[in-house]
Parts: sequence; structure tokens; C-alpha cells
Amino acid sequence: MSNIVYIATSLDGYIADKDGGVDWLHSIPNPEGNDFGFAEFLAGIDALVMGRNTYEAILAFDLDLERQWPYPKPVYVVSTSAVGVPSALEGKVFPLQPGSPGALVSQLAEQGHQRLYIDGGKTIQGFMEEGLVDEMIITQIPIVLGGGMPLFGELAEPQAFELVSSEVLLGAMVKNHYRRRR
Amino acid sequence: MSNIVYIATSLDGYIADKDGGVDWLHSIPNPEGNDFGFAEFLAGIDALVMGRNTYEAILAFDLDLERQWPYPKPVYVVSTSAVGVPSALEGKVFPLQPGSPGALVSQLAEQGHQRLYIDGGKTIQGFMEEGLVDEMIITQIPIVLGGGMPLFGELAEPQAFELVSSEVLLGAMVKNHYRRRR
Repeated sequence: MSNIVYIATSLDGYIADKDGGVDWLHSIPNPEGNDFGFAEFLAGIDALVMGRNTYEAILAFDLDLERQWPYPKPVYVVSTSAVGVPSALEGKVFPLQPGSPGALVSQLAEQGHQRLYIDGGKTIQGFMEEGLVDEMIITQIPIVLGGGMPLFGELAEPQAFELVSSEVLLGAMVKNHYRRRR
Repeated sequence: MSNIVYIATSLDGYIADKDGGVDWLHSIPNPEGNDFGFAEFLAGIDALVMGRNTYEAILAFDLDLERQWPYPKPVYVVSTSAVGVPSALEGKVFPLQPGSPGALVSQLAEQGHQRLYIDGGKTIQGFMEEGLVDEMIITQIPIVLGGGMPLFGELAEPQAFELVSSEVLLGAMVKNHYRRRR
């Protein structure tokens, strides 16, 4: 089983700015709409796990959910409160009662989901705290935000990784793939 | 004139761990003692500016100062209190009264120092706050420390950079060179 983070950060490690905004993620012109391998990445995972805040932030983009929902795999939304699932997302989005990251992983493994895409600040930090992040694919946007929501939180102990690959995107962003060194 | 940061960080953006330690900087075996271009970088700057903490941390490595002092250029140590300069470093290390980063830059420019290597957490953060960091060469060590002394601090406004180059070192570390977009 493996749990993978795929995310973009500022140079100072934020995933959202002081106002919760993510417009700066698109500060590098991408006229050809390159997805930088995201579709291929999604093809290689079994399911997504994200928190309710992340889920609602995606819904707030006001996508045409029939045509533009970005995830071809089941999305599990971890939430203590009720999660609204629009009819267009039935069979695609599933509420999940919060539990320890380890318990969530076991529960999803029982349903055949071995490779999980872990998304959202709090969810990622929870998995990191338990040492349950196996891979990280982090794209660095060349901006220093000076505040916001950090990708990483406090850890009891350092965690070492190895570099799998590093790629420059559009001559501006650096996408690094790391695997936990065990 | 230009002010340049050259530093290594953890993946979560720390320049020292929770105990102030930097052993993790050397966690990647480097049997040939490659300096990754540091000597070449030093050849291209006119002087260094660092805080007293950083200066004292370097002295604490207990180098043979006649033979192992790493800087071939004048080192200005910003400090309100007296800075001890061992005799081996006379003519190499100069105490500097604190002032605004802009005032320090002007003062050093009058002495012919156009390209400054800005080092040390607080000093770098002070220059960043004033928008006075023109280039950053940051090597990322593949470890998540989970706490420590961060490279970046709070900023009033975001600062955009452009990627000059990106290089993988020893198949493990990623060294990125950024220039401020003005």
C-alpha cells in the first residue's frame, strides 16, 4: 500500500495564500494547458482522500460537474459533519468518517484501494504525523507568499526521503518526486 | 547592486533543526567532497553579510582559521554587541553596526561591494522584508525536519521570482537558482 501526496507549493511552502487563495498557482502562463502529468498520475492511483475543506474548495470553483470533475477515481471526503454530494458526483464522492490515518488506510485497503492520493493541508499533515506518507510529488511555484496555509506541520521526528525525479516545468516551476526512505 | 542568498533547506523550509543543528545538511554521502559550485559562487560576490549567530555558529565548527576559513571575501558581521574577531580573521571579518538592510547595502556599496552574499536566518528575513533579495540559490535536502529555524518569514506582500536554473546534486538534492522578478 502506498500513500502519495501530489501538490504545489510556494517557495516558502504554502499551499494557499493568507486569504486562502490559490490564484498564484496559475501565475506561470500555460497557454497549451499542459497538465504536467497529472492525468497520468491519477491513472496510477486507486482513490483520493481529502478533507472537507479541500472538497468544498474544489466545488467552489463552480465546475460543470458532469464534464469537469477532475477525478476519475473514487474521492473519499473525510468529515465529521455531513458532506453534500451533488447528484452529478454520486458514485464518485464518498463521505468517510474521520479516523486515524492508519485506520482510514486499512478501511480503504479492504475496498481494494492500495494507492491513495492524499490531498488537503490538514489531511496531509495528519498522514505525515503518523509517518504514512510514502511519496510526495511537489511542484514549486516561483513565488514567496510570506504567509498562508503551510503544507508541512510539526513532526515528532524528521523523515528522510529520496529523490525519484526532478523536472523543470515551463522553464519556471520545479516538480520533484520524493519517496520515503524506510 | 545585487543581494544574493545561497543556502540549503529541508523540504519543509528549515535551515536548522529544532536543536539548532545542521548535521542533516550532510545526510547525503558526498565522498568526493564536491562543493556543488560554492567556490565559484564565492568568486562572483564582493562581500558577505551575516548576523552574529551565524558567524558564531561557523566559529563553533572549530576550524583551523588560518587554513579552513571558508570565505575569500570580506565578511561583515551585523551585531549590536561586540564581535570577537580572532587574530587569524583580522582583515577578513568586520563588525557592522545594525541598520536597515537598505542602509547596510548603501554603506557597503560605498566601499565597492556591489554583489553581497546575504547569510543567516534573521539577516535573510530582514532583507526579504525590505524586498532587497535579488537572487536566491537554494539547495533542498530530501528530509522533512518537522520544526526548526525557517528560512522564510512573514511578508507584507508576495514576491515573485523567476527560475534561472535547476540542478540535481548527487541524485538526491535539488539546487534551484531564482532571480527576483521586478
